[in-house]
Amino acid sequence: MYSKADVDTAWALIRRHVRRTPVLELPEGSLGLASPLALKMELLQHSGSFKGRGAFHKLLSSRPLPAAGVIAASGGNHGAAVAFAARALDVPAEIFVPTIASPAKVARLRSYGATVHQVGAVYGQARAASESRAGETGALQVYAYDDPGVFLGAGSVALEFAGQASFDTLLVAVGGGGLIAGCALAVGETARVIAVETTGTPTLHAAFAAGRPVDVAISGLAADSLGASRIGTPNFEIARSLVRDAVLVEDDDVRRAQRLLWEELRVVCEPAGAAGHAALLCGAYRASPGERVGLVLCGANCDPATVA
Amino acid sequence: MYSKADVDTAWALIRRHVRRTPVLELPEGSLGLASPLALKMELLQHSGSFKGRGAFHKLLSSRPLPAAGVIAASGGNHGAAVAFAARALDVPAEIFVPTIASPAKVARLRSYGATVHQVGAVYGQARAASESRAGETGALQVYAYDDPGVFLGAGSVALEFAGQASFDTLLVAVGGGGLIAGCALAVGETARVIAVETTGTPTLHAAFAAGRPVDVAISGLAADSLGASRIGTPNFEIARSLVRDAVLVEDDDVRRAQRLLWEELRVVCEPAGAAGHAALLCGAYRASPGERVGLVLCGANCDPATVA
Repeated sequence: MYSKADVDTAWALIRRHVRRTPVLELPEGSLGLASPLALKMELLQHSGSFKGRGAFHKLLSSRPLPAAGVIAASGGNHGAAVAFAARALDVPAEIFVPTIASPAKVARLRSYGATVHQVGAVYGQARAASESRAGETGALQVYAYDDPGVFLGAGSVALEFAGQASFDTLLVAVGGGGLIAGCALAVGETARVIAVETTGTPTLHAAFAAGRPVDVAISGLAADSLGASRIGTPNFEIARSLVRDAVLVEDDDVRRAQRLLWEELRVVCEPAGAAGHAALLCGAYRASPGERVGLVLCGANCDPATVA
Repeated sequence: MYSKADVDTAWALIRRHVRRTPVLELPEGSLGLASPLALKMELLQHSGSFKGRGAFHKLLSSRPLPAAGVIAASGGNHGAAVAFAARALDVPAEIFVPTIASPAKVARLRSYGATVHQVGAVYGQARAASESRAGETGALQVYAYDDPGVFLGAGSVALEFAGQASFDTLLVAVGGGGLIAGCALAVGETARVIAVETTGTPTLHAAFAAGRPVDVAISGLAADSLGASRIGTPNFEIARSLVRDAVLVEDDDVRRAQRLLWEELRVVCEPAGAAGHAALLCGAYRASPGERVGLVLCGANCDPATVA
C-alpha cells in the first residue's frame, strides 16, 4: 500500500518539470453555488491536463530509460502527456492510437515530437499493438492510470493545491482512477475526497457496488476523457480506504457546468474538468453551509467552440 | 496629478467586490519566448475583463448613487462591467449600444440585469443618446477610460500583480488608456511599463508622436476591444510621465499570440488580452536576457472558437 509520503517523494522528483498551476478562490454565490470554492487551475498544466504530472513521474522514476524510449497507447490526454514529457526529457516516444483518432489529436501528438502509429479500429487493438511493439523494441510502456509511477505523480496536484488554499472537501473526476488514487493518497486523511463520474462512465461507482473492479459499458459525453472501462486495481484499493463516496452526474449536468465555467470565468474545461462543478450544481454532492469545496479543473483538451 | 497612493485607496475600496485573479509563472522557453514570464490571469475577473475593477470603483466612489442609477455607452467589456457592478451593488443600469451590436453582446448585458438601448448606427450616436438620457434622468454616467474613478480602479490589477510575482517590465494593452494609466500609476516607479497597441488602434503611439492626444483611424482585429479613437487626456498625461514606450504589433502577431496561448496554456484571450504576448513574439519589445516580464491577460470576451 502507498501513502502520502510516496506522493511527497513523487512531487519532489517532478516539481522542476511541471507547472505550479494557480488557484482561484471564489466566495459563496459564485458559479451558481452556495459554497465557497477553491479552483485548482490544472488545465494550465503542460499538455493541457493533469496527466503531465504522472507522465513526468513515470519517466523520471524509471531512469535510466531504454534507448528505445517510451510507448503509450492513447489518443487523448495521456498520450499527449507522455509525448510532451518524453520530448522534454529528450527520449523517443511512440504513441499508438486507433485509426478513428481525430486528425487534430494525431497532429498534437506529432507536434510534441512523437512517432504516431494509427492501428486498429478500437482502443484495445491500438493497445495490443503497442504492447507487441514494446516487446520488440524494449521501450518502456507507460500505462494511463493503473501504475503507481503514474498515479503518484498525479497526486502531486492535490498536495500542491492543499498548500495554496484550504478546503474541507475535494471533488475529483474519475476515469481509470489515476487522479483519484493520487489525490486520495495526498490529502485523503485531511480532506473529504469525493469521486465524481458521469452515469456513462461509472467505473468507481460500479466497483464500490460490486466490492471489486468490474467492467462497465462506457458511453456519453465523457467517454472520451473518462472512458476507461474498469477502474485500476491498485486505484480501487486506495479509493476503498481513502475516498468517501463516488457520486454520479448526468451528461447534461456536465454541459451546464462547462457553460457556466465559460460564462462566469472564461475558462474552457473538457467534460472531466467540469465534473466536480457539475456534482455541486445538480446536488449529487451536497455541501454543508460554509463547507469549503476544492475542485480540480483537471483538463481543457476539447474544442473550445463546444463550451460557449 | 494622481499617484500610486490613489490606486492604493481605490484598491482598498473595491477589493471585497472583485476577484483576486491568480498569476501563472512560466520559465524561460515558454510560449515561444526566451524570457521568464508572469501572467496575470485577469481574464478570470468578473464580467471577463479588467473593466470590472474600474466599474466597481466608479460606482463605489460615487456613493450615494442617484436613484436613476448608472448609464454607460458600450457594447463591449466596459458596458458588461458596468452592468455587472450595478447589479452587484443593487442599482439600476442602462447601457446604450449601437444597433450593430451583436445579439450575443446584448444578451450578455441583459443577463446582468441591465436595460439595453440599441440606438444609432455607430458608437458615437449611442453615446450621444446615453448622454441625453442621463441629462433627463440624473443617472451617473460611467465613461470607459478617461475618468479617474475608472482608471484608478483599473490600476489595482497591477498592484495586486506586484504582490503576487516579481517583474522587471510590465506589458499592457492600450485602447483609450484606462488600464495603462492605472497600471503606470500603480507600478510605473518600480517597473518598466510598456504600452502595446495594434497598428490599427495606435492612440497612445500617435499621441506620443504628436505630443498630445490626437484622433486616429481605428481598424483591424482589435478595433472592437482597443478601439477608442483618441487616448484620454489624463491618461496621456500619466503615460507621458510613467510609461517608457508605446510599441506597435500587427494583427497577425496578435492572432499568433492568441493561438499560442490556447495551444500551450488552454487560455482563451481576446486580442487585447494577447497583445503583450504578441509584442514579445514579434520583437516589438525585446527583453534583455533574464529580464522578468509581466503580462496582463486582461480579457477573454471573444468567441472561443476563434482562438483554437
